Amino acid sequence: MIRVAVAGPRGRMGALAVETMITGKDFLLVGVLDRKMAEKADTLAGAVPIYTDMATLAQEAQPDVLVELTNHESVYPHTRDAILNGIRPVVGTSGLKEEQITRLSELASEHKIGCILAPNFSVGAALLMKFAAMAVKYMPEAEIIEMHHDGKKDFPSGTAALTARMMADSKGTEPNQPDGRGTDISGVPVHSVRLPGLLSHQEVLFGGDGQLLTLRHDSFSRQSYMSGMTLAVKDVMNRDRLIDGLDKIIG
Amino acid sequence: MIRVAVAGPRGRMGALAVETMITGKDFLLVGVLDRKMAEKADTLAGAVPIYTDMATLAQEAQPDVLVELTNHESVYPHTRDAILNGIRPVVGTSGLKEEQITRLSELASEHKIGCILAPNFSVGAALLMKFAAMAVKYMPEAEIIEMHHDGKKDFPSGTAALTARMMADSKGTEPNQPDGRGTDISGVPVHSVRLPGLLSHQEVLFGGDGQLLTLRHDSFSRQSYMSGMTLAVKDVMNRDRLIDGLDKIIG
Amino acid sequence: MIRVAVAGPRGRMGALAVETMITGKDFLLVGVLDRKMAEKADTLAGAVPIYTDMATLAQEAQPDVLVELTNHESVYPHTRDAILNGIRPVVGTSGLKEEQITRLSELASEHKIGCILAPNFSVGAALLMKFAAMAVKYMPEAEIIEMHHDGKKDFPSGTAALTARMMADSKGTEPNQPDGRGTDISGVPVHSVRLPGLLSHQEVLFGGDGQLLTLRHDSFSRQSYMSGMTLAVKDVMNRDRLIDGLDKIIG
Amino acid sequence: MIRVAVAGPRGRMGALAVETMITGKDFLLVGVLDRKMAEKADTLAGAVPIYTDMATLAQEAQPDVLVELTNHESVYPHTRDAILNGIRPVVGTSGLKEEQITRLSELASEHKIGCILAPNFSVGAALLMKFAAMAVKYMPEAEIIEMHHDGKKDFPSGTAALTARMMADSKGTEPNQPDGRGTDISGVPVHSVRLPGLLSHQEVLFGGDGQLLTLRHDSFSRQSYMSGMTLAVKDVMNRDRLIDGLDKIIG
Repeated sequence: MIRVAVAGPRGRMGALAVETMITGKDFLLVGVLDRKMAEKADTLAGAVPIYTDMATLAQEAQPDVLVELTNHESVYPHTRDAILNGIRPVVGTSGLKEEQITRLSELASEHKIGCILAPNFSVGAALLMKFAAMAVKYMPEAEIIEMHHDGKKDFPSGTAALTARMMADSKGTEPNQPDGRGTDISGVPVHSVRLPGLLSHQEVLFGGDGQLLTLRHDSFSRQSYMSGMTLAVKDVMNRDRLIDGLDKIIG
Repeated sequence: MIRVAVAGPRGRMGALAVETMITGKDFLLVGVLDRKMAEKADTLAGAVPIYTDMATLAQEAQPDVLVELTNHESVYPHTRDAILNGIRPVVGTSGLKEEQITRLSELASEHKIGCILAPNFSVGAALLMKFAAMAVKYMPEAEIIEMHHDGKKDFPSGTAALTARMMADSKGTEPNQPDGRGTDISGVPVHSVRLPGLLSHQEVLFGGDGQLLTLRHDSFSRQSYMSGMTLAVKDVMNRDRLIDGLDKIIG
Repeated sequence: MIRVAVAGPRGRMGALAVETMITGKDFLLVGVLDRKMAEKADTLAGAVPIYTDMATLAQEAQPDVLVELTNHESVYPHTRDAILNGIRPVVGTSGLKEEQITRLSELASEHKIGCILAPNFSVGAALLMKFAAMAVKYMPEAEIIEMHHDGKKDFPSGTAALTARMMADSKGTEPNQPDGRGTDISGVPVHSVRLPGLLSHQEVLFGGDGQLLTLRHDSFSRQSYMSGMTLAVKDVMNRDRLIDGLDKIIG
Repeated sequence: MIRVAVAGPRGRMGALAVETMITGKDFLLVGVLDRKMAEKADTLAGAVPIYTDMATLAQEAQPDVLVELTNHESVYPHTRDAILNGIRPVVGTSGLKEEQITRLSELASEHKIGCILAPNFSVGAALLMKFAAMAVKYMPEAEIIEMHHDGKKDFPSGTAALTARMMADSKGTEPNQPDGRGTDISGVPVHSVRLPGLLSHQEVLFGGDGQLLTLRHDSFSRQSYMSGMTLAVKDVMNRDRLIDGLDKIIG
């Protein structure tokens, strides 16, 4: 059993993480980190202690892993302090700056402690990205179709743009010239569909001589993000440095 | 058995039509219309007579139906002369002008003879268009994805554009404002994928409350066009006027 | 504005229907029918009156339409009494017996009042079924793939079986011999996928010469059923007899 | 430029390979191996010499690679003799027995020469298999849908069965109990669709918490097999032992 603490237990993702850690058979939720909640109660659900600072959490609850799900202001100090207190961070919050990631990476290596940055990714999405980066080496002609509910006004989606950039890096050749179809991201045309009823869907199509390879990921609920988090919580136990991206621990 | 003649038997589509009429159990190929071929031989495959003018074809071969698969120059006189000679035209050639269609329609009604214009459509594509025009009344938010081999430089495809216009007509409301996603055709975003290996593929997506309806047609070979032609050859026997579009005879 | 009453407002579907009728701009929720709830409160959400019998509901609230979402015991008397009181029933509850449907049909015709039976169908699912029954006439070779979450132990799904039977009726020829692939329903092979994470998905594939036509419906949430109900509530206003099936009002 | 010889140049695959090697800019076709053809002509297409035995081919044409596309009788002696003559075999013919593969593997290692066995696989199919074996470790619940033209009477397809076995090996747990859905292959349900018009299509679906990952490969023409062969011809140059499977050289 891995001893886990969750920072940010009242947010939507945090609440899901708490539930996942309580019900998961491989995990023991030993505490949560939350300044405001602690003012009203000192345990969560009548049993899990609520802490307001990392040092006390580390000393009393002795977690192996901290799941960090707060916000872009708290994510850096929480992750740094976890490492300094010998707790392995799994970071689901986005917003870390490039120089902060560099500093956290140095810290993790110094302390020979695992730390995984995996903001908002399901296992399926991470697999899709990894496979897309592999496939593009053998079938370099590719396009992306991402489909979301019509409430999402921006396009293309962040996941699609990241996938396209990973593919371009992997392919390593000059990007194709944009021809007006879709949004050109590093030479990969990305098509964005927005329709009511849709959730979050992404397809990568690779065309070749007489064939088509299609990778598709459908995310039907926020529950899907938990799959990436639990994978990272298990994996971080065997690491001694910072890993940036869920796709890096798959293979 | 329906007695059929084919105009343009040496073209790619014409040759397929000849083969289809010879092998189909509901049809009897009674002659072909071809000026140039007749100079070299007077029968096709040793049995089917080759004619150079419609009057002789009508009198000697007595076809019920003329399958017209020549080119944009010959299609109008052939279709007109067929009607005047009491032969029902099934027109697979594109390029008829609006006023020519009007004139042919008048002629067909005068002579109480069937005539079907169905350029280049498979039964599956016609079904997709018909269904798309029906579905959009109940699920008005829709987008089209068309996918073709990378040799096709223009976009969106003619079929996708026609489908979008049929949907817009059926919906009958003000089109949505274009937002830069895909190509706006009558308010329907059309996304165009071009990849080596692809053939001809079209998807229409309809989104609604908590649901998605998808209509898709894949055309894997030129053989698919024959399905529309044979349907039209059978159907034209029961018509007494001009029908513009395969989708009009489905229902 | 159509004046609507909901029978069974505490069930999952009923609660959704209440919400849909309150928020929908074309509807006015004038009352609910619920024996048990009325004991505790006499209005729903502080405004909508709760009735325990149809006669009082009819007299005081004067609804145009009754949305019936109770259970297989109450559905028949509710539907009958609605017709007798001049209220048009839209029935979302399943479980009506053949002879009950016959009797309700007679009653509706006698009273020249609309009544629509549409148990649990979204508009998209109804469109798919209608299109499948049309397409099979032109592309008679077809198979169904239905995909659901692994909690659904029975197979094939009721919707897939109904679709297959509608296709077989429409085709009207001898069914193919089963060959061990999928579940044979009236000669249509139905393949059942059960996987965690899936919701409710159905695909009908029609193969022909060099082509494939695919109809697919994805139901992502219970919200999708509301689309069929609101369509029926509007449509029933223009009917003067019983209609069995949402697909019958589409066209 | 890699110097290539083709064994079996008159077969359908062999003829395609000859064409591919002649048109490919990275390859030089230096000879073909064909006993019967040599009786009638001594060059192919007026330029490529035809040989009837491996020793002469090796000595005169000095190929780097032999593409073996004959039949299950000739494949073993050809592959063995190629290795003995210092030519790297790329084997596209199926039918090698287990003990023959073992012997060829020993021979290749002894001679420190590359040899790739890749019967009938396109690059896309190999990528799909590799990805399926990787994904199943993280999303262990999976099913396969394979779709082929109705002329293919056997089911499931060999590729689907091989994919299922690779997935079962990779997962390494007890297989699920079969429940009558699809064909159980090592605990993976495989669903087989057979429809006219279809070519060769395979889908692997992985379900998880709130998500679905889909890998799909469509093979539209025999041309697709060439992609695997050309990849292998390039790759075999850098090997010094036998590799069994195209998926082993991808990564």
